[in-house]
Amino acid sequence: MGSAPRPSEDALIARFFAPLAADGGLGLKDDAACLTPKPGHDLILTTDALVETVHFLPGDPAGSVGRKALGVNVSDLAAKGADPAGFLLSLALPSDWTEEWLAAFAAGLGEAARDFGCPLLGGDTVKAKGALTLSVTALGEVPKGHMVRRAGAKAGDVLCVTGTIGDAALGLDLRKEPDWARHLSPDGRAFLADRYLHPRPRHVLAKALRAHAHAAMDVSDGLAGDLAKMMRVSGVSAIVDLDKIPLSVPAKDAVKARPDLLDRIVTGGDDYEILCAVPEKAVDILRREADSCGVSLSAIGRVVPEHDSPVFRAGSRERRYDVGSFSHF
Amino acid sequence: MGSAPRPSEDALIARFFAPLAADGGLGLKDDAACLTPKPGHDLILTTDALVETVHFLPGDPAGSVGRKALGVNVSDLAAKGADPAGFLLSLALPSDWTEEWLAAFAAGLGEAARDFGCPLLGGDTVKAKGALTLSVTALGEVPKGHMVRRAGAKAGDVLCVTGTIGDAALGLDLRKEPDWARHLSPDGRAFLADRYLHPRPRHVLAKALRAHAHAAMDVSDGLAGDLAKMMRVSGVSAIVDLDKIPLSVPAKDAVKARPDLLDRIVTGGDDYEILCAVPEKAVDILRREADSCGVSLSAIGRVVPEHDSPVFRAGSRERRYDVGSFSHF
Repeated sequence: MGSAPRPSEDALIARFFAPLAADGGLGLKDDAACLTPKPGHDLILTTDALVETVHFLPGDPAGSVGRKALGVNVSDLAAKGADPAGFLLSLALPSDWTEEWLAAFAAGLGEAARDFGCPLLGGDTVKAKGALTLSVTALGEVPKGHMVRRAGAKAGDVLCVTGTIGDAALGLDLRKEPDWARHLSPDGRAFLADRYLHPRPRHVLAKALRAHAHAAMDVSDGLAGDLAKMMRVSGVSAIVDLDKIPLSVPAKDAVKARPDLLDRIVTGGDDYEILCAVPEKAVDILRREADSCGVSLSAIGRVVPEHDSPVFRAGSRERRYDVGSFSHF
Repeated sequence: MGSAPRPSEDALIARFFAPLAADGGLGLKDDAACLTPKPGHDLILTTDALVETVHFLPGDPAGSVGRKALGVNVSDLAAKGADPAGFLLSLALPSDWTEEWLAAFAAGLGEAARDFGCPLLGGDTVKAKGALTLSVTALGEVPKGHMVRRAGAKAGDVLCVTGTIGDAALGLDLRKEPDWARHLSPDGRAFLADRYLHPRPRHVLAKALRAHAHAAMDVSDGLAGDLAKMMRVSGVSAIVDLDKIPLSVPAKDAVKARPDLLDRIVTGGDDYEILCAVPEKAVDILRREADSCGVSLSAIGRVVPEHDSPVFRAGSRERRYDVGSFSHF
């Protein structure tokens, strides 16, 4: 863009974001959006911010950044058993933004909004002082009183996770061209890289989770740390079988080459899978319902009536990850 | 703080923000908040971002920044006739944050939340790359179908504004120690400075606005520009009497010393007053209801069936402000 004249905020909104707006967004021409809640439902609200270099990298495709910004929020809704209803976007653009970047960002965001059934309701666009920073607030709906809490895990529950764990962390590490990368096929490397760029929120599982799970959260800051949080707030602990943690084929290849990568898999962030505590009698039906939505579900351990941090077992060896979770400060 | 160890994100939330949380915020210990909407009501949603050096200045008191972040959003809700229901905060903190700053910020935010009846529901705290950046998403409620739109102004309506116009813009200008400042009393200068720092959202007027106004918006980017937006989207225009624009005593003193400041008053931002279009027969009752809430209401002009930009009249002179509104890009 160089020093070409910039469109006004209104022109920018009309061009890039109004096409993404739901009816309640009023064409993004009002001060606020209007949402008529479904009768008999609670609203579930979550907000997640993304900062360039912290949550995504400068070279990441703009469309991927747009998709991720919505995906990480829809992932939180899914874990609460909520069906997506819409989102608001707050975007702080650094002075060197280009129309090309913004068009690709909006396209990725719009595609994600359609895929997740979560339309744009409103937003704000401002000038950043520093890196590109964006924040999404997503709204979802659950039948009244049926939000799946983080604090509901009970001793005896089976711990399950969706999908596979650790791919995104390995995908991020791949960018540093580690020696283990050469043990992976090109497709395997591409798979892991994609898992970092494009979270797959498990919103299709929302209904099954609220029907069957005692507790759930999305795994975003590492399985070990997030599990520890869920257990702590539920007043219980957990025993996890390391061998049962579901790994993708490329992740298995990486661990075969470098066994210590298993720690990275268990503690690395950005999985955006769902961790849930499920009463034993409901595990099979939840797994079948997940299968029918195209989402795999794996039992990885059990909730126990302790207060220590969770134990990860492999054969006769045991370990705890006491600082397993990513902390931003 | 220097290089002292920083609290984790969880510790920071527990210490500074959990005390501000509503019941639906679940102590900020879950992935998401839960809000049970009032039956028969629509939800009104708005989000506004604030960036240090753009929307507030590095020396501004932290408590004022917290208050402003919520105030500018509640102002949008008020203009839509919505009663505040709660908010989410997304906070990107630069690496040099101090506990002192954050404690004062949270105190100002919490005080505002109580004053505006708008409790904290959830949020996200991340590391900024650059200036402190924060984004608030506020939720309000209106009886179903009663949101006051921006696009509803009709030819013949009386244009009204709450409070006084231009104080915040002059308050900001005062920081550059302009020559007109010496014509103001110390109290007058303090009043204007305070009006920039502390927006006064007119949420107490929400009910009266939805009962009586055809259209409303909050004046945040300058009266001239915001009026032009409302008229354009309503398919009408306006004639405003410059003499009827309500000015505070310090603003009058400033204009007396420097008559050209009137342009700054009409185009400057950060008023956070409400502009509304009201059918003539409802003006008196709206004014009485506003008075009874302690908010003054002034008729400043009239909606006319034209499509040009609004005309501002003073005696026989007329002018238009074609680029009256602050644009962020």
